[in-house]
This record gives sequence, C-alpha cells and structure tokens, in this order.
Amino acid sequence: MWYRWNVETRRPTNPAAEELLGRYFPVLDHGFVALVDYMGSDDDVERAARVSYGYGTRKTSQTRGLIRYLRRHRHTTPSEMVEFKFHCAMPMFVARQWIRHRTASVNEYSGRYSLLPLLFYRPEREQLKAQSASNRQGRSGAPLDDLHDDAMARWEELRRLAAAQYEWLVAHDVARELARIDLPLSTYTQWYWKIDLHNLLHFLSLRVDPHAQYEIRAFARVMAGMVQRVAPLSFEAWVDYELHGAELSRAEMTVLRRLVRADRGSLIAPGGSVDATTLGMLGLSAREAEELLVKFAEVEQPQDFTLDLASARSAEEFAAEMEAAVPQVDRGAGETPPN
Amino acid sequence: MWYRWNVETRRPTNPAAEELLGRYFPVLDHGFVALVDYMGSDDDVERAARVSYGYGTRKTSQTRGLIRYLRRHRHTTPSEMVEFKFHCAMPMFVARQWIRHRTASVNEYSGRYSLLPLLFYRPEREQLKAQSASNRQGRSGAPLDDLHDDAMARWEELRRLAAAQYEWLVAHDVARELARIDLPLSTYTQWYWKIDLHNLLHFLSLRVDPHAQYEIRAFARVMAGMVQRVAPLSFEAWVDYELHGAELSRAEMTVLRRLVRADRGSLIAPGGSVDATTLGMLGLSAREAEELLVKFAEVEQPQDFTLDLASARSAEEFAAEMEAAVPQVDRGAGETPPN
Amino acid sequence: MWYRWNVETRRPTNPAAEELLGRYFPVLDHGFVALVDYMGSDDDVERAARVSYGYGTRKTSQTRGLIRYLRRHRHTTPSEMVEFKFHCAMPMFVARQWIRHRTASVNEYSGRYSLLPLLFYRPEREQLKAQSASNRQGRSGAPLDDLHDDAMARWEELRRLAAAQYEWLVAHDVARELARIDLPLSTYTQWYWKIDLHNLLHFLSLRVDPHAQYEIRAFARVMAGMVQRVAPLSFEAWVDYELHGAELSRAEMTVLRRLVRADRGSLIAPGGSVDATTLGMLGLSAREAEELLVKFAEVEQPQDFTLDLASARSAEEFAAEMEAAVPQVDRGAGETPPN
Amino acid sequence: MWYRWNVETRRPTNPAAEELLGRYFPVLDHGFVALVDYMGSDDDVERAARVSYGYGTRKTSQTRGLIRYLRRHRHTTPSEMVEFKFHCAMPMFVARQWIRHRTASVNEYSGRYSLLPLLFYRPEREQLKAQSASNRQGRSGAPLDDLHDDAMARWEELRRLAAAQYEWLVAHDVARELARIDLPLSTYTQWYWKIDLHNLLHFLSLRVDPHAQYEIRAFARVMAGMVQRVAPLSFEAWVDYELHGAELSRAEMTVLRRLVRADRGSLIAPGGSVDATTLGMLGLSAREAEELLVKFAEVEQPQDFTLDLASARSAEEFAAEMEAAVPQVDRGAGETPPN
Repeated sequence: MWYRWNVETRRPTNPAAEELLGRYFPVLDHGFVALVDYMGSDDDVERAARVSYGYGTRKTSQTRGLIRYLRRHRHTTPSEMVEFKFHCAMPMFVARQWIRHRTASVNEYSGRYSLLPLLFYRPEREQLKAQSASNRQGRSGAPLDDLHDDAMARWEELRRLAAAQYEWLVAHDVARELARIDLPLSTYTQWYWKIDLHNLLHFLSLRVDPHAQYEIRAFARVMAGMVQRVAPLSFEAWVDYELHGAELSRAEMTVLRRLVRADRGSLIAPGGSVDATTLGMLGLSAREAEELLVKFAEVEQPQDFTLDLASARSAEEFAAEMEAAVPQVDRGAGETPPN
Repeated sequence: MWYRWNVETRRPTNPAAEELLGRYFPVLDHGFVALVDYMGSDDDVERAARVSYGYGTRKTSQTRGLIRYLRRHRHTTPSEMVEFKFHCAMPMFVARQWIRHRTASVNEYSGRYSLLPLLFYRPEREQLKAQSASNRQGRSGAPLDDLHDDAMARWEELRRLAAAQYEWLVAHDVARELARIDLPLSTYTQWYWKIDLHNLLHFLSLRVDPHAQYEIRAFARVMAGMVQRVAPLSFEAWVDYELHGAELSRAEMTVLRRLVRADRGSLIAPGGSVDATTLGMLGLSAREAEELLVKFAEVEQPQDFTLDLASARSAEEFAAEMEAAVPQVDRGAGETPPN
Repeated sequence: MWYRWNVETRRPTNPAAEELLGRYFPVLDHGFVALVDYMGSDDDVERAARVSYGYGTRKTSQTRGLIRYLRRHRHTTPSEMVEFKFHCAMPMFVARQWIRHRTASVNEYSGRYSLLPLLFYRPEREQLKAQSASNRQGRSGAPLDDLHDDAMARWEELRRLAAAQYEWLVAHDVARELARIDLPLSTYTQWYWKIDLHNLLHFLSLRVDPHAQYEIRAFARVMAGMVQRVAPLSFEAWVDYELHGAELSRAEMTVLRRLVRADRGSLIAPGGSVDATTLGMLGLSAREAEELLVKFAEVEQPQDFTLDLASARSAEEFAAEMEAAVPQVDRGAGETPPN
Repeated sequence: MWYRWNVETRRPTNPAAEELLGRYFPVLDHGFVALVDYMGSDDDVERAARVSYGYGTRKTSQTRGLIRYLRRHRHTTPSEMVEFKFHCAMPMFVARQWIRHRTASVNEYSGRYSLLPLLFYRPEREQLKAQSASNRQGRSGAPLDDLHDDAMARWEELRRLAAAQYEWLVAHDVARELARIDLPLSTYTQWYWKIDLHNLLHFLSLRVDPHAQYEIRAFARVMAGMVQRVAPLSFEAWVDYELHGAELSRAEMTVLRRLVRADRGSLIAPGGSVDATTLGMLGLSAREAEELLVKFAEVEQPQDFTLDLASARSAEEFAAEMEAAVPQVDRGAGETPPN
C-alpha cells in the first residue's frame, strides 16, 4: 500500500535501501522485519561531519576514510543523522529485551485496544538446549533432542488452553486489558521502531553478540543486513572496529607489550611467553586470563549478514496471517479508531 | 539490611522521606513499591532555580511561591535535580507499560540468569469488568460478577499448567531463557527503577489517570504518595496545575470567552449560553463538545494519595515470599554471580 | 549540490515538504534555516497510531480526526515517527539556548578544527529595548531609539577589535581553540540539527512563546512554517490544542465553574462575577489572578507562520558569504579533513 | 550553608563522598567544581546488578569482582543507579563543549535574568601553544613564549572594552539578554549539573582524553578525582578497562595474531615481525599503522586523579568573588525572583 508507485523526491536517496522498502523478511516462525522508511546514508554521515571541518578544509571526497576515522575515534554524532524506520513482529519475551534500548521511538500493537492474534513462538528442535555453564544466562551444548517432542506437546497444550481462555474471556466481553494477562510470553506482538544509525549499531553490537538470546539475535541479524545496504561504509567500519575488533584492558596490554614492541615502523615479537601464573601476577583474574587466551585462539570467520532479497514476503501476506489468528468474536459497532 | 542503622550525612536530608526508607508498600496481590534511596527535596528544586536568578536577586526564601511559579510556567529543569530510587515488583503486563517511560534507569530480575518465582496476579472480583465503550481501551461498568468464579477457575488451571511446564523444563535443565517463554503475562517480575522528579511527575500524570489500566494505577498511586512526602510543595503544585487542572483548546477558550470576560480585576459572566450547535460551529467535534461539558459538570473530589505507613511490610517479608515461589530444583555449583 | 536532480523513491513523500528542500530561509542578519531532509508526514503519524488499533478496527481513513485526538490526549509517541533535518546558522548566544533541547541530534561547525567566519549579529533598531519589568528576563516597551547609534558604534568597535585579535592570533599560528575564546557571543555558528516532530513541536511551544528571546523566536517561527508544510494536520492540532490553547489550574477551574455550568448539552452562564478578593480566597496568588484575567481579556489573532518561499536564497549564496568572512591566513598543507 | 550540620539518614552513605561535600575545588583561574550531593556508591551498583541474578544465586559479596565483570562486559545499566550533583563554574567556551553531553540535567545561571559577573578566563603562559599538526583540532608543541605578553595585552584590552560596553548597556537599562551578546566566550558562567555514574564515566572518557581541549580536561580531572572517592571500585574498573585499555580493530587483531598465540594456558610469541608493508596489506591505513605502533611504544604512567582536599575553598569564597565581579548598577525594586 505504501510502496506501490515510485515518486520523485529531491531528498538524498539510496538505491540499495530503496530495494528493501516494502519487503518483509521472515524471522523465526511468525515474525518479520521490514524497513518501511529511511533518511540518509553514508553520504549524510560525511556531510554532518564536514560541517565541523568547515570552510578551512579541502573538500576532496574521501567518504570511506572519513567514516572509518569517525568510528575508530568514537565520533558518533554524525551517524545520528541517518534514520531507520522498521516494522517488526516478534514474541513478547523478545520485545521485552528489545524495548530496553531507550533511544528509539516505538509504537506497539495495543492489547488493551485490539484483539491479539493468537500466534505463539515455537522453538525449533535444534534450539532446545541446556542452560549454559560458562555463559550462565544463555543456552549451550547439543540440542536436547530427547526432550523436544515432549516439550512441544506440553507447550501446545498450554497454548491451546491459553488461546481458549482468551477467546472465552473476550467472547464474554471481559475487557481486553484483562483478557490478555494470561497469554504466554511467546505470543507475538508487533511495532514500528525508529532509531538512528548510531544507536542502531549500538543495539546490533549487543544483540548480534553470542551472549544475546538466540531469538533476538535472529532479528538483529536481519537488521544488520539492512544497514549493510543502507549505509555500507558505516557498516563495514562497524564490523572492522567493533564487531570483530577487541577491547583489551590495561593488564592485557601490559601482557602484550611484554611480547610485542614497536620498532621503526614495524611490530616485533622477539620471542617469549607469558604463562598462567604471570597472567595472574599482572593483574588478570582467572576468568580474564581465559578471556584473553580466547582472543588469541583460532578465529571464527567474520559473520555474514548479507540479506537474501528472495526470502522476503509481502506486507499483505503477513497481515493476512496475523488477521486470521485474531479470535472471531462479534465486535459490534464500537470498533472505529478514536477521533 | 540497608536500613538497619542511621548514619550521619552532610547531604540534604528530608525527614518525611527518611521515614519511608525500608518500608515496602504492598500493591495488588504480590507486588510492592519501596523507596530505597532519594536525592534532594523541594529545597533542591529551589536551589537549582536560584542559580539562574543569580547574584542580582534578593535571596528571601519563598520556596512555595517559586515552585508553583516554575510548574505553572513549565520550567521543569529544576525538578530534574531531585531523584527517586524505587524497588518494585509487578506483573509483567504492568512492567511492559511501565518500561515505555524511557527517561528512567532500570535493572530488572533476569529470567535468563535466574529461576523465576511463580507468582501470578489474580484480579479481584470487583476488577473484572467489560470492555469500555467510551474509553475503548479500558474497562468500565459494573463488575462481571457472574463470570468471576468461572474466570478464576480457568486462570488457576492455566497457571498450574504453566508452572508445571516451567518446573518440568528447568528440572530437565532446559535453558531458563527458553523455559520461561510460556509463563503468562500475569507473572510477577521485579526491578530497581530510578527517575528524577520531573519525569516521575510526568509518569504519574499518565499513570494515575483514569485512562491508565487499573493495575498500573495502583502502583502509580503509591509512588504519588511517596512524592507527597519527599517533595510536598512540588507535589501540591503538580496536583493544582496538572492533575486537577484542565487543558482547554483554542476553540474551548473561544466558547468560554463568549460567556466570561475580564473587567477591572474581576471575572464577569453577564449571563448567556452556548448550545451544541454553536459548539460545533465554533470548531468543536461532537467528542470535543462532550469532553468540554464534562469539564464543567460536577467535580470529583481531589484524589487522596496519602500513604498509610502502617500498611508497609518489610523487605525481608517480600523476599521470603518470592524466594518460596521459586521452583525447587537442584541448582548445583554453577550458581555464583559472575565476577 | 544535494538538490540538483529529482530522483525516484519508494518512500513516503510529501510535495509541500519537497518544495522546501534546498531553500535557505534568511533569519536575522546573517542566519538561516533550511530543511535538508525529512522522513514522513501526517500519514506516518496515523500509520504509527493505527498499529496500536490493530486488526480489530475499521480502516476508514480519518487522518485529521485521529491526529487531533492524539494531540488532545497527549498521545505523543506516533509523532516521534516523523523526522526533520535542518541546516541552520545562528549567533552563539542563540545556539546556547537552542542546544538545551536534548532530544535532538546536532553537528556543529568546529572552532577548534576550522577558522570561524567573522560574522556578528547586529540587533535592528526596533529590537533595542529595556529590561522588562513584568517578564523579568526579557525586553519590553518602546525601542530605546536614542541609544541605538551609540550602542551600535560601541558594538562595532568591539567587534573590529575582536576580529583583529582573532586574525592576529591565527596568523601567529596560535591554536584555534584558544584564538576563538574572545570572540563575542554574537558570532555566528552553524549546525545540522535533526529532531522528530513530537520534540520539534515541544521546542516550538517554548521558542515561539513571547517569553523566549526575540532572536531565537525568529528561528522558531521559520521552523514552524516548515512544519506547517510537512505535517499540516499535526501543525493545525498543535496550534489549536497547545499554542493557542490554555492550561487552567485547579483553582482557575473552580473559579470558572462558579460562573459556567454544563446543562443538557449546553454550556450555561447564569450570570455572576468573581472579584479579586474571591479569586484570592479561591487560592489564586495575586500573580495568578492577573494571569487568569489576561486569558479572558481581548485575544490576539492567531500567529501566522506561513512561509514566503520567495524569500529563500540558495545554499551556495550563504556558503559564499560565510567563506568570505573567514580570515585569510595561509593555512598550509595540514588542512585536509581527517581520514 | 547547605553543609553546616551533620544530620542522620537511613540512606546508603559513603564516608569518602561525605568528605567532599561543601568543598569547592578551584579549576583554571576563576572556575570551580564542587560535589553538592550524591546518591549511592559501588554497593548500589552491586545491588542493582544482583536484582538480575535473583533468588537462584549465592549472595556472597564479591563487589569488586562483580563490578569489574560488569564493566568489562559493558553491562552499564547498574552504574546508572549512582548519581552525582555538581556545582561548577567554567568559561562559556568550555560550557559549550560540556553541554553536548545530553544525558545530564543542568540549571545554568541566566544572563537574561541576572547581571553577569565579569570574570574572564586567562590562559597561563604554558598553555599558549600552536595549532597541532597531528591532532588537527588541538594545540601542541612548546609554549609560544614570545607571543604571550602581546596576546595577553590584546586580550586585556578587549575584555576591558567588553566589560565597559556591558556596564554601559545595563546602566542604560538595555535588556540583559541583549547587553550580554558581545561578552567574549571566555566569560565565566556557572551551573548545577547532575548525571549518573555510567554517563559521567563516558563523559570522563571523552574529556580527560588528550584530544579534549586542555581547559575542559582540567574540569574533568577534578570530577574523576571525585568519582575515585565516591565509587572507588567502579573508578578502578574504568581506569583498567577503558581509560588505560585499548580498542583494537579486526585488522590490528589479525596483525597481533600473527605474532602471538594462545597455547595451553599461556600466551606465546614464537618470534617474528610485521613490517609497514605487511601492515598495509593486512588492511591498516598509514594512519592506523601509526596508531597501532603507538599502542606498543613506551607507555605513559597511568594518570593520577587523586584530589588534594587541602586545595579546596569554600562556597562562600567563590560566591563573594563572583558577586564582586557583577557590575554595580542600581537594580531597583524589580529584582525579586519570580513567584
């Protein structure tokens, strides 16, 4: 409905971003992420930065170098000048993590005003894992294959009951704000979410991280793929300086400086080692020592966030699925939106 | 534990606020609000404002007049100088409304890290009402008495099942972040919540309002009672200028100016009336006309937020209730907090 | 340079906003406001609100009614979904007031990095007024005509000296961050400023107000004219419910309810008056009584913010003026922007 | 006046913070920083974090370990639970940099309402330096000793003229908001500034950095010394993980992994080197290569922020200096603050 025709604009546009508009990318079993509007691109990050460098500077365009410089040195304000507006649907337990990012604007589907579609998130077999011993807040290890069928059967029973309870309550005209209180956290909700590039990259740093819950990571990965198209140079700088960079503590740097030194334009390691005892003496706790060693162990490949445009579906398709999942009760004449 | 002994401080203190510290006020069936720390009081609002009025002004103390002036003219920055830190427990559907207020700091109990207490909110009989036709998002009318026993029985069944499912999953060592996804929105959570006076009063304006959901209003009312003690002059000004004031539109003022005029220090109504047709001609929609008439209908008494200190319980009592509701699974040696 | 060609976009566009792009509106003697990008319009406020009203509601478009309803009831989050990006130049004392609005993004010209154009704001003859006795922070009364020539001569002398001092320092290669410290607050600076519609309207409420300093009001008025084009329904609602509405306190409403009552769909004033003594008894301070009477005195015409497109100049014209005002020192080879 | 007597409180207190209250630390020639109130300490960071770890965890107190873990892993929300309120005076060009940090509350002395003290910042001889070639926005090299007397004489002349102009205008009753517009950016202003620990540490990271202007660094250093007393463990973690840590990019880590590897609990450098050509081939720009080498060159000593309590003066002393610098004009009867 929004994207039927192309129209002319004098605003900065961005072909790779234009290509995304109106495509709804599926996430998990009933969720989606769609870019519904954007403002600006890498060029606008540069423009905003250039205003600081003013009339006393040469205007040769070096966008990539400038953007990398800005990110390396945490000059983040120019990247606030680019905006993204998303339409997303996600389970409520994911929404509760997501909403913690306060520097964004959000309008969520109202369960007080409207009947909720009864769609629930169902973890896939390979996602059912045990509590992680190392991470302490996530899951790890092999899928708990033996449990899956049992767990699913129990979940299905619970959801059938929760859906029936919701339908019974709204059919008896109980206020929706009450009828919904026993829907499970796996129920899908949806919202518009608007955020600037700086704050989006911060969100992504936290939410594509392996410590984030798998389910929110799935959403973050799609949004990362969208940033890659809307602001490719900013995205690349984020990958190089944040996502796949490393933060070393003062003690870690002390360790490394024992092994490596700068000498006439080269970095030289004369040969040597620092063992566990010495790591402790240099101030690293056992856990920090472990974290340091991991940084120098075998490296994973950089993550690939490239979007498959062919995987996208239409807004209408998702809307139809949602609408079909709304309980069919006679809703009478009072249903017009307010005015 | 925090409040066992009194100690000396050179900070601004506030006897009425001191009296609140350590008292946990029950809200709904298992929730609470406690003020665990505060910074400043009405005097600090005045101090902050006075810095603007500087050396060229007389320093006669007129705290009340100044604070009322500031609020009347929406000079809100001085009231950002007072801080409140609360410890609260509330159902998750309430937490989801609450967290929308972004200008606050929050640390919430983590269902990824920790086992959740299985406490669920149970609406009281008189709260089970039908969807409101006028409000369109809330409830209204007489309690649906006939439904209550039935609804409760269904809720209890659902909760028993949800609790059993959670216990079964964590007993089988399924990651907590997954085990919790089918807990109902009525499950209690808890958090620390820190906010400044200006933003707290804005929160209260929205959340003690009759359009807010009853359950979050119950929390807001207790916090309002706390503000009344910590910053009584600011509270009084908020009641007089916001809570029980009225915002009149340009068209509404046009209507009133037809009926009332200023004349040599008096306000005079020569006598007259404006009927429905004229209200429409002056630009009010049917709904606005109705809203205007309500403003001049019989007035409710001002709300009373006075706290009953005797109703408070101890932190330990609530902690014991919460802890007893955590499923008893063998949690092994991995349970120390991170370091 | 940005706006030479029209290109196609699938984003929501807005003809009246498109017309503004690239037009630099002069403000004061050397300042300007230009809209350089925007995202969304009234339709997007509606879309964001509709997501809350969901699948259970009729989709008949009633944009105006909905937008007025939202503003009347302070449902402000949907209007965060529209963004404005401005390029502005203003005297530093204006910039210092402007920057107090924290919910915006800004990139300012850097006096540490770049040489500053030596352009200073020169108040016009009719703006030179005495300290206001009633407002206490602004100016009022007739222009101080006798003083103007003298004041200007003194200002010119000071600015010549300040400019000479700046040029002398940078010519001697003193760091720019130091060379600038004795430039007067009337020196022009410039920035990009991005803000959403909700926060922009809040800014405008404060900054088109007669209590705001004349010079920042001049900027706010132009931005108001831009909002009128980009989001006309939101603008109209803001005028009707905020700008030309009135906030009445609890005591003021008590006064009015003595004079006016609602009766079967009409508002009726049986005839009567409230004199100064009674106003005091009903809780109004002398100053509040005065403020109430003003609300019912003769009404000013609604402010007109309509932009004259013909008054706009080009970006290049302003850039040339700025650049010509930068001191001519040999700036050597170090002047490339960072990379 | 605030700090005359000690009173009792049940709030968390902090002896090292208490000792700071009421002490005004001089900064530059007429500026100061004073801690006027605080809320919380390291213990409150821990308490806030513990709420997440909940009932399923052992409560052994390991504050230091936990705080270091939180900072290392950028779990910053618990440190939002500690607040600082400062009273500061600084030159306006410093205030303009400072105010860019938006997540703080501020009340500034009003030049519209009040007469300004005519105190100007005078750089010391060793601070007058040339524009830096490497930094491009700061100063570097030896002091420009030959210029100092000349520069100062010029500055003094300008300030005398600016002060005379201001006095002449206010003596002729010109509105203060206009009279001040030609005061230089070196004029002192003052404000209350309230910020939480998380945002304060972010401010300090940017403002004690050698790239920040010397003058704002002087203020940041004093505030760092205050944090060291109010929240010593958080301060230590900030020093170790941020201030004296290093952020290495993906390419830099690739370089280091060529020289260093993890092996059975040790870090081992078998011996080798990476020269300038290889650094380029591995993706480092010339500037990045330079920055990497600097990280492994000889290390400066960690910065020492320890406060000298003996250097503090009283609030009254500074107030007297400020007040004495306010122009003496007959200010008549209108000078009471608003009410």
